Amino acid sequence: MNRSIVVDTTKSAFGSLQPVALSDVTVADAFWAPRRETNREKTIPQQWRQCEATGRIDNFRRASGHKQDPAFHGAFFNDSDVYKMLESAAWTLATDRDPKLEKMVDDLIGEIAAAQQPDGYIDTFFMFDKAKERFTNLRDLHELYCQGHLIQAAVAHHRATGKTTLLDVAKRSADHIRDYFGPKDSRKHEGVPGHPELEMAMVELSRDTGDEKYLKQAEYFINARGHGLIGGSPYHQDHKPIREQDRMVGHAVRNAYLNCGATDLVLERGDEKLKTAMERTWQQMVSRVLYVTGGIGARANGEAFGDDFELPNAAAYAETCASVASIMWSYRMLLLTGEAKYADLIELTMYNGALSGIALDGENYFYVNPLENDGNHRRVPWFDCACCPPNISRLIASWPGYLYSTSKDAVWVHHYVKGALNGKLTVDANYPWSGKIAVKIDGPGSYALMLRVPAWAKDATVSINGERQSIDLKPASYARLQRDWKAGDTVELDLPMPARLLLPHPYIESCSGKAAITRGPVVYCLEGVDQPNLDPREVELTANPRFQERWRGDELRGIMTLQTSDARRLQFDPNALYQTEVATKSEQPVSLTAIPYYAWANREKARMAIWIRLA
Amino acid sequence: MNRSIVVDTTKSAFGSLQPVALSDVTVADAFWAPRRETNREKTIPQQWRQCEATGRIDNFRRASGHKQDPAFHGAFFNDSDVYKMLESAAWTLATDRDPKLEKMVDDLIGEIAAAQQPDGYIDTFFMFDKAKERFTNLRDLHELYCQGHLIQAAVAHHRATGKTTLLDVAKRSADHIRDYFGPKDSRKHEGVPGHPELEMAMVELSRDTGDEKYLKQAEYFINARGHGLIGGSPYHQDHKPIREQDRMVGHAVRNAYLNCGATDLVLERGDEKLKTAMERTWQQMVSRVLYVTGGIGARANGEAFGDDFELPNAAAYAETCASVASIMWSYRMLLLTGEAKYADLIELTMYNGALSGIALDGENYFYVNPLENDGNHRRVPWFDCACCPPNISRLIASWPGYLYSTSKDAVWVHHYVKGALNGKLTVDANYPWSGKIAVKIDGPGSYALMLRVPAWAKDATVSINGERQSIDLKPASYARLQRDWKAGDTVELDLPMPARLLLPHPYIESCSGKAAITRGPVVYCLEGVDQPNLDPREVELTANPRFQERWRGDELRGIMTLQTSDARRLQFDPNALYQTEVATKSEQPVSLTAIPYYAWANREKARMAIWIRLA
Repeated sequence: MNRSIVVDTTKSAFGSLQPVALSDVTVADAFWAPRRETNREKTIPQQWRQCEATGRIDNFRRASGHKQDPAFHGAFFNDSDVYKMLESAAWTLATDRDPKLEKMVDDLIGEIAAAQQPDGYIDTFFMFDKAKERFTNLRDLHELYCQGHLIQAAVAHHRATGKTTLLDVAKRSADHIRDYFGPKDSRKHEGVPGHPELEMAMVELSRDTGDEKYLKQAEYFINARGHGLIGGSPYHQDHKPIREQDRMVGHAVRNAYLNCGATDLVLERGDEKLKTAMERTWQQMVSRVLYVTGGIGARANGEAFGDDFELPNAAAYAETCASVASIMWSYRMLLLTGEAKYADLIELTMYNGALSGIALDGENYFYVNPLENDGNHRRVPWFDCACCPPNISRLIASWPGYLYSTSKDAVWVHHYVKGALNGKLTVDANYPWSGKIAVKIDGPGSYALMLRVPAWAKDATVSINGERQSIDLKPASYARLQRDWKAGDTVELDLPMPARLLLPHPYIESCSGKAAITRGPVVYCLEGVDQPNLDPREVELTANPRFQERWRGDELRGIMTLQTSDARRLQFDPNALYQTEVATKSEQPVSLTAIPYYAWANREKARMAIWIRLA
Repeated sequence: MNRSIVVDTTKSAFGSLQPVALSDVTVADAFWAPRRETNREKTIPQQWRQCEATGRIDNFRRASGHKQDPAFHGAFFNDSDVYKMLESAAWTLATDRDPKLEKMVDDLIGEIAAAQQPDGYIDTFFMFDKAKERFTNLRDLHELYCQGHLIQAAVAHHRATGKTTLLDVAKRSADHIRDYFGPKDSRKHEGVPGHPELEMAMVELSRDTGDEKYLKQAEYFINARGHGLIGGSPYHQDHKPIREQDRMVGHAVRNAYLNCGATDLVLERGDEKLKTAMERTWQQMVSRVLYVTGGIGARANGEAFGDDFELPNAAAYAETCASVASIMWSYRMLLLTGEAKYADLIELTMYNGALSGIALDGENYFYVNPLENDGNHRRVPWFDCACCPPNISRLIASWPGYLYSTSKDAVWVHHYVKGALNGKLTVDANYPWSGKIAVKIDGPGSYALMLRVPAWAKDATVSINGERQSIDLKPASYARLQRDWKAGDTVELDLPMPARLLLPHPYIESCSGKAAITRGPVVYCLEGVDQPNLDPREVELTANPRFQERWRGDELRGIMTLQTSDARRLQFDPNALYQTEVATKSEQPVSLTAIPYYAWANREKARMAIWIRLA
């Protein structure tokens, strides 16, 4: 039986939690349901058109001979964009009947299958005159990375539709890779992917097919890394074996994808040393190099992690793909451990640093997600390097799969989205705008209901059938409600969601003396549209500012705004870089309206800032 | 008659001020005199040894056939280091008799002269098999840049010693370049230096020889730039004609050197449009992209200027060469305009961002001058790319030439250094530690004595022969004291020099909520050596902190330290990047000792910071 599970650890020996199938989840809220509809109706078709218009699909037709095209189109990694788009379409088909999309998917799979070489090799860049360069530059040319995305798309398609058309292609490719790459003593070729991705894909292929050989291949790639096979640079996470790594380093997406594969390996093998390395590295990430939006990878140069606390705002890179990759990694850590901190980071990243990557119209994208900008950074319909658009799309498509888990005697609710874990429970919520959540039990059973108390939620309370429960609801934990549940039992969780200020660690150079306005999981920003003639950099919040919440259903697809009059405009000499007078204090009061960061740059161009000076 | 003038605008038609010769200046203070002695006795010989040890001088011997060396040593721009070292030695000989140094200079000039090709070409990289690549890659290979440094060394040597041995080499090289490069319609080859330097050198050669052809060649190069001859990138300042430029952009040293040449051209030609462009660009520099140390070029990537207000501290590049180049440019602007702001920037840069480039021992150097560091950034004896060591050395050697100017009816004192403008006046001062300056008139005359009131100097007062003068002494201006001066007249200028805090423009992301401690022209820092167990990033100055001055003659070649107890240590969760509690306030008082920034990293390794949190 095929079940549309995003990361299928159902049979993994070392997981704490069991994933649920997309098809077992109903999303019926005002936040995600419309976004998923936009993803299906706008985003995927728009990306399909882009892939056609830019020759990405023609590259497959060229490889198969279906089209006489003199040259490969675009960059050497272009196949991966097609696969990721296909993966997004596959997850969409898991929850939504869409015959038109299904036909597009089937047709595209036909083109892909036709492009595959008799030996299983498939990369449309390395065709014809370039065929002799196959597997000659693993470090730079993303060849194995593309195979990883093929496999992930194939697994998604198989799980979502039950069809094996793409899975067969992926297996032949994986077998070819397996025959070619292996340890020194295997008479195969040594090598590892310059851009990780294939590792987690191989583990998933193993899970999907039940064939351990793919898991072993993933294991080979993960263990072979860090021994200089691709040059030994930190950029490629090849500077030391992964079990010795203790910090995020180098290219952010590569590192997070690599860690996905490594965590997948721990889920299968229970490798304690590798698990410890993953936990240690994750902890370093959240305590040293994480943006308040959840974004990672501060440096544009190398799309890379910076030093500890190097988190510039205007110059932030914080690639959309890195946020997606971070969520994918934390999800695997959550399945492995059942620890709430991983779900906390998923939530933070999803509602902020990832979601900012796509416009409200679903057809324009950020590659880079700065935390401060002069207004000229705008989302665009496509990129030459188009990794981000299909990445955020596949995340939105697969998001229902992230909401719930089960374990032997428990049902876990990680994210509060109005809808249901079908047959088990129904959720009523208006998240992320309200912290009042009602969970109705739909079928009887004796188990623990595990409700996440987010890290930001202080003074949470919970009632069962109207009766307040006297249990400790610590932030960043799961409230454990063990009971013989009856259908109709109702649990009410109240997560007070006042506006609150976050203060940066004093070592972060870029936001000293400033605060970020947040509410629940949502990080806010000041955008010039809402305060014309006021530069967010010239504003100071007074100590302990009070914020008024104001729901704006008509704005930006519906947002809660935060307004305050506890602010003043700074006075200073605009032409003096350094001034002796403490003239930056002024009593000129101003009113501010903050909007969710993810929604910025969806109106006219205006300056934006997350970090605001605090008196 | 040869006079050792650093930038000889004596006959320039459009200068406001006249430079004075090095040999007309006496430096007899406790700050610069020992540093100049160190430069002569330690720095220049140490650099000479490095140039020998690294094959830089052998490259000349190889080119001349004096040595059978199979290959060129080092990087393609290595000749320039030798020339700059030679320039430093030349300026040194202008003020100090040193027969040993003179012989070294003469010998080296012999080696250089022997390496020159019959056609005048001289670049030891483009020899033998590489000869066919001459002038084929002006953009990247620094070929004309090296010629510029040859000419500057030659001019310095000629002015300092009267000898023409190196000048003859330089003229032949310049003639060769002149014959080769010219406008489209001249039947010559179009081209401009990828790395500016030759422009100002050609102007100086014209001044030194009285031959306008070199000025015209400089003019050609300056005007040809910005039209895409070297690719059209902002990195090379080739994106638009220089008269249209309105901001510093691209590689910092290149831009500042280019502007030196352009300002030299204005001094000769009085080109109003070019002058306006220089003034506008300089203003942009000081009001948008200047470090509080005077350093410029914030970005390591491309050794380049960043966006407006992009001034990271720990990641600052602020190359030593860029500080030197900035001083060279401002000095030309000062000669052109007589405006105090240019001397202010020279002072700021000299005592901070430039001087930090050399260790107190005179034998170790910074290439990069961060404003905050964990203590691992240390000065080293040499670099593969060794532009900075001889650059700071030649600046120190020529520094006496920057102190005074004359104009038709005035004598200008720009920088207060105990010593004399020989025959004119004697200065008594203990600068930069004291603002009390006494100027004694040594010969009678009717003129205005122009004493600079630095931008940092509030409430300055001036007395003549004990009588307080009731003139307005505005910061960043020259006090004009017009009188029939008699020998023995004494002017006392008092520039009150309290410790003062500088606050950053609110748009500077890297130091919001912080202040820099300064006193007079000196920028201070906290170095861990002086406050063990205290991380400067965890410290907060209370509002209006009081500082105690304490002279430490025994420390760091003699420094004024600034001590305060108006500070406290912050409390925070070291593992939380973002925290909701305003827990960063603490009443734990601490004592701090600040030292001059230029002197940091001369003791054991310790964390350093200029910008300190201010309550």
